[in-house]
Order: sequence, then structure tokens, then C-alpha cells
Amino acid sequence: MASQQFEPPSGTRDFLAGDLRVREHVFATIRDVFERYGFEPLQTPAFERLETLMGKYGDEGDKLIFKILRRGEHEASGEADLALRYDMTVPLARVVAAYGSQLPTPYKRYVMGPVWRADRPGRGRFREFAQCDVDVVGSSSPLADAEVVCAVADALSAVGVSGFSILVNSRRALSGLLEVYGVPADVGGGVLITLDKLDKQTPDEVVRELVDTRSLDQDVASALVADLTAPDAVDRLRKVLADAEEGRAGLAEVDRLIDLAAPVIGRDRISFTPRLVRGLDYYTGVIFEVVADGMPGSIASGGRYDHLIAAMGGPDVPACGGSLGVERIIGLLGEDAVTATRLDAAITIMDDESAADAVGFAAGLRQSGFRAEVYLGSSRKLARQLKWAADRRARFTLIYGQQERNAGLVTVRDMDTGAQDQVPPDQLAAHLRARLAAAP
Amino acid sequence: MASQQFEPPSGTRDFLAGDLRVREHVFATIRDVFERYGFEPLQTPAFERLETLMGKYGDEGDKLIFKILRRGEHEASGEADLALRYDMTVPLARVVAAYGSQLPTPYKRYVMGPVWRADRPGRGRFREFAQCDVDVVGSSSPLADAEVVCAVADALSAVGVSGFSILVNSRRALSGLLEVYGVPADVGGGVLITLDKLDKQTPDEVVRELVDTRSLDQDVASALVADLTAPDAVDRLRKVLADAEEGRAGLAEVDRLIDLAAPVIGRDRISFTPRLVRGLDYYTGVIFEVVADGMPGSIASGGRYDHLIAAMGGPDVPACGGSLGVERIIGLLGEDAVTATRLDAAITIMDDESAADAVGFAAGLRQSGFRAEVYLGSSRKLARQLKWAADRRARFTLIYGQQERNAGLVTVRDMDTGAQDQVPPDQLAAHLRARLAAAP
Repeated sequence: MASQQFEPPSGTRDFLAGDLRVREHVFATIRDVFERYGFEPLQTPAFERLETLMGKYGDEGDKLIFKILRRGEHEASGEADLALRYDMTVPLARVVAAYGSQLPTPYKRYVMGPVWRADRPGRGRFREFAQCDVDVVGSSSPLADAEVVCAVADALSAVGVSGFSILVNSRRALSGLLEVYGVPADVGGGVLITLDKLDKQTPDEVVRELVDTRSLDQDVASALVADLTAPDAVDRLRKVLADAEEGRAGLAEVDRLIDLAAPVIGRDRISFTPRLVRGLDYYTGVIFEVVADGMPGSIASGGRYDHLIAAMGGPDVPACGGSLGVERIIGLLGEDAVTATRLDAAITIMDDESAADAVGFAAGLRQSGFRAEVYLGSSRKLARQLKWAADRRARFTLIYGQQERNAGLVTVRDMDTGAQDQVPPDQLAAHLRARLAAAP
Repeated sequence: MASQQFEPPSGTRDFLAGDLRVREHVFATIRDVFERYGFEPLQTPAFERLETLMGKYGDEGDKLIFKILRRGEHEASGEADLALRYDMTVPLARVVAAYGSQLPTPYKRYVMGPVWRADRPGRGRFREFAQCDVDVVGSSSPLADAEVVCAVADALSAVGVSGFSILVNSRRALSGLLEVYGVPADVGGGVLITLDKLDKQTPDEVVRELVDTRSLDQDVASALVADLTAPDAVDRLRKVLADAEEGRAGLAEVDRLIDLAAPVIGRDRISFTPRLVRGLDYYTGVIFEVVADGMPGSIASGGRYDHLIAAMGGPDVPACGGSLGVERIIGLLGEDAVTATRLDAAITIMDDESAADAVGFAAGLRQSGFRAEVYLGSSRKLARQLKWAADRRARFTLIYGQQERNAGLVTVRDMDTGAQDQVPPDQLAAHLRARLAAAP
């Protein structure tokens, strides 16, 4: 815990070596998966022009945008002209609009980096947090949806998340559902937002909100919720949806996605989930969410959003994508996920005369790929320096006092066994390699 | 070039895959070197509290800080409470103050990431740019200075910068110099700032500024500049500095640093450079700059700054460090520095029935570590898809039409030679591996 006065700003974090190594390991692992899918990396600036961001995230979102004050003579105006990135989708839309023909078609890109939202900080909720997205812009093929779902699933497996399931639905299926139940088109969006609460609220609470807030008839609301929450919801919905063209089309795209992805990720891991809604209203086709055993909420999600790039200021191209909840995944893994790399050699300094030689030993070991550190304290006592070596979790300690210098040998102490060997300086790397190879 | 309207904000850049791979390669290479030295990574938030940053960079620096507007009901005040990171040293000082005893002693850390300065954008000058620092906090040993200089030199070599020289001087030597020349202490700082211009201005111009602006006597100014710019400046200065205690101490620390570092980086690459001043006034001991053949200015620099951490809000601990001019280094390397990783397999889709099999082929190849992409366009024509595969620079293209399906074989086309093989699906990875191993 940081001393109060020197803590990072509210909702942000300092990452010291241990935590940072876990994060970087997760990012590197995910990156490796996305690269194998042929997704390309993209990095955009931390801030965008204010007008690029405003109005893209709804009124609530607008309030959470960190705005940057104008500078110089304009600072006194109290006006902002720039704003910190709020998500990775608006920058993607800007990039697609900006570089269009220079980008591959379709443009498959992944991105991982921080975004900033002025949310009230809380447990697991930060104002600076990483997002990790994968998107395909410019393809309306169901194969694109399948590639996104498979990439997300592969990435989760690669970082060690097991026991997850992929829930699939379609916005067109949901439209068909509302049509069959006679829900007026103008309240459809609101009805979906309420239905999205079925994973957090009781069916009765959801029915009440459908009636009170969304003005549905009591029996329509009850039937809708009963169908969606029934144990045989899938069968019921398949029958219901067959009665509407949009419903049939939606079901077909759900089935197509599952057919394409299931052989890769396992048929028991992906399923049609009629009550899956996804809060955001920009989805136009299949939608998905990944849930994991014993975890509330989802650890990844996505879907098809064919007109969002245009709404965000780009050209009107089909697109689909997925987002990994990396902060949740990292929280799930804990510090044990990455074994701290050990220091290979701690090099003591017994007197000033041996210092240059010690630096030379370190250089030789580093050139051979070892991690080596020279003692930088002022003590010239061996016991003190051995404690330092132990604190640094060194595998070996090199001792080179006057005796060793006279003999032209370095004492190499195995910090695990206490065994000591006398080694000629030019054979240090070879000695360490041999000892490490022989270790259990 | 981005279309005007969709360009990133002034002074910032979008990094598409090609540029980004070069940057990430450079960062990864440098990181690898620093890790071998036992430096630990650190990551702090993009923004700090405004009061943490203000007043730390001088009046000019304060004006270049990007300030973040308060939020919610406070937004209308036009006041800022946060500000984007301006360098990596103030956050380091805050972290040292915050986590003191939880950090190793000494705390050796490296950091690489963006900082933001509202400078007027220009050629090679950006408002968002990467800094890459390595620092040792809590050691006054000359070995710490030597480790920093060696780490910087090794990192430069590792990223492929050759033909560089390390110029070394000491702030104490400079103090001794001014003392010997009878420069009053209160104008010493200003005199050094003027002397720092010797690499850009003629000796006469510098003499004039010393007289006009710094109020030195004409003959003192002339003698000082003549000594510093003489071909035998090193010998002259060694004699001059011997006359003052600070001068002798400064020379001794310069010689000690060179003695420790020279065996590692080559004696002809590091030298005492009496006219090296370094503009910043916080240095207290040895200072260094790295220059490369045919490049104006420096590509790395650093030194000892024993009281800066305290001035920045941390505890008063000795410290030294170095900074790599990564943006300049990346500019130097160009896109050729990293060979774009090629797509191993482009997988065509000849009809909808084969799509699930194609996704399966891709999954198998990816599991074996290959980069594989499935065609996501709507055409079912082979010629069109082969063009796509060529655009993606695929090494192999997999073709799986009705004929192949009936035979239970996949046609694998070598895109370099045009040769085609029929391969059972479960032997695709082995086939690609064998072909790649056999290729020249």
C-alpha cells in the first residue's frame, strides 16, 4: 500500500515488477494468439480530439470522459479541446476512415492498451484500465464472426482460463422475438435493456419493470419472461422464432456461428442462449458473451455491429469484434501466474580493486543471456553481501576477493545448496550453464 | 497519410502494424538488455495529480503540461486536478516515496512508455512520445553509474546502433573549472548553460554570450572557451582541474567511471569530454551523453542526480540514471529493421459447405504455432482468393473445393514456387513444417 500522500490518483494503479510481469505475460500470450489468427496490431494516441469522442457513448458516457484543458493563452477559457480515449472502437473507426485503402481488406486488428473513464472507483473498477479488443472491419461473412469467437476462446485458454462457456444469441433473433410477442417497435430497445437484467434480477422483478417502465401488457411481459427463463427455453424459443422472418434469420446466423466455431472450441462450450441481450444497442447480428465457472458476469463479449463504424465517424462497413475483460482475467490469475524470473548471478564486491573485474564478469554473463547484478552498496563485508544476494533470490553468488584474484579464479557459490566452486573467469558462463543443466 | 479530418490530434501518431512492429521490436530488445542487468520494470498511471507535476519542470515546462479538467459539477469551474505524465522521473520519485521499504535497495528500475508535452509539433518532435529510462535509486557507488552507462551502451548495440561514442564529464569537475577561472558562484549556473551551446555555436558566439549575458570578463571568457575547444582540451583541463579540490574530485569520478565501463564497452568508445555540460541543472556528479556517427545531438544521456528525488517529492536518496532517445533511435532504424512476419497459410473458401472444415484447418495450424487466415470475403472464385492470399503475402495457400473434399485431401499451393501438393488434413502442419525446412 502506498503512503496516502504519494498514492497514485484515485482509480489508478502503480504496477511494480511483480504485478507488471503478470500483466505483460497475459498481454503477450493474448497477442501471440491474435497474431496467429492474422490480426494486426494497432496503436492510437492516448487522447483524441474532443469532438471525436463526444456524443458517441450516450449522455452517461459523455460525463465519464476525461477532458484535457486547452493550453497557453486558451487555458484561462476553461475549455477542453482533447479527451482521453474512452474505448478502442471510436479510434478504430477514425483509423478506418483515415487510412481506408492503405489497410488490408478486411481489416483485422487487435489492440491492447489503457482507456480512461471517470467512473466512481470501486473494487475492481478503475479509472485507468486495459482493454483488449479484436475486430474484423469490412467482412459480413459468418466466418468473420466465427474467427472472432474462436480467437477470443483461444486467448482465454492460452492465459489459463478454463471451464468457460460461450453464450450466443442474435439481435435479429431478439427482434423476431419482440415481433412475435407483438411488442411495438418503438419500445423494443427499452424492452431489451430490461430483459438484459435477467441475469441479475428475479423474473418477477423483470416482469414488473417491463410493465411499469416499458408499458408492456402484463400477460405479454409474463409470457416473454417465462419463455426466456424456462429450463427448455431453447426449444421454446426455436418454435417461437420460426414464426417471424427476422426470428428465422437470427436463428440461422446463431446456428451458423455455432457450426463453424464448435469444432474448434468444443460443442459443449458454445450454445444458443435466448436470454442473452448485451446492453449496448449498436449490435446488429450475432452477439456473444463468455462466462466462467464461479464468476459472476462475463469475461469476454462481442458481436456484429454493422453500422457502428459509420456512427462513430467512419465509412459504413460491416464489422464484428470481441473484447476480453483483461482486468478481470488478470485479477483471476493472481501473482502466481508468472514465476518471477530469478537472478542468475549476484556479484559481490570485496574491495575497490576488484570492481572493474566484477563489472567484466557481469558483462560476460549478460552476453551469454544470464541475468547478473553487481553489488552497489557500500559494505565490503561478505556476510552483508550474501544477504543481499539472498534477498535478490540469486541462484549463484560470485565472490572475488584478494585470494581469488591472486589465484586467478572466481568462487561461485550455489545459493540453493551452499556448494562452492573455483572457476576461471572465462569459464563462468559455461560453469553456470552446466550447473543449471545438472540441477533437479 | 491520414485524410485531414480523421488525422490523429496534432503532434500524435497512429501506429499501424508496420511501424508498430518496429517500435515493439525496439522496446522488447531494450527491455531484454535491462532485464539482464537486473533492472525491474515499473508502470505508473498516464496521469498524476496536478500538484505532483506542477513546479517540477520550471516555468517553461509547466506551460507544456497537459492538464485534465475536473469532472461532473466541477467541470464548469474550468479548473484542472490531474495532468498527463511529463516525464518518468517525477513518477519514479513518487513511487520511491510511496513504496520505500517494499522496493529492493537499491531500487533499479527501467520504464518505457509514452509521455506527453504540449510542445509545438515539428519534424521529429511529438506531443506524445516514448521515453525509455533506466535508474538506480539508493546507491552512491560509482559502480551504479558504470552499470547505467553499460546498460545504455548495451541497449544501443542490441537495437543495432553502431559507431557511437560516450562522452563523460562531471558536474563537480565543471564546478572546479569555474572555481579555477574565478567565476562567481552565483553566475556559475548561467555560465554552464552558455557553455552547453559549444556544440551548436561558434566559440566566438559563446564568448560573446558569456560576456554580454553572464557578465564574465572578456579574457576569462576567452581563456575558458579556448581551453574547452582546444584540440588538447583534455590535457589542458586535467592540468587546470588539478588546482581545485572539486576539480580533482570530479576528475577522479570521471576516471573511475571510465575505468569501470571501458573494459565492457571498449576504451575507444568512452572518453572524458571537458566541454560536456548537459543543460539540466539537477545533475550532481558524473554526466554522460552518447553521440553517433553522422547524427546531430545525442541519442542517449544521463548522469548522477543525488538530490533530485527529494526535490521531486521523494526521500533524499542518491540516484543516477540514463535515458535512451528511443524516438530518434526508431527513426534511425526505419521500417526495414523488422522483417514483417509472413502469413504461413491463407485458407480459401470454395463453397459454404467447406467453411467449417476450413476453420478447422486454420485451428490446427494455429495450434502448431503457424499464422493462418481464412478468406472472409464473399467471392467464391479461386483467382480472386489467390490474389487475396498474395496480398496477404501468404507462404502457402490451402484450397479445399468439392474435388478435394471428395478425395479427403487439401491442395497446398506453395506461393513462392507455384508447386501444389495434395495433403491429408491431419498432416497439414507437418507438411508445412517440412516444406519450410526444405526451403532455401
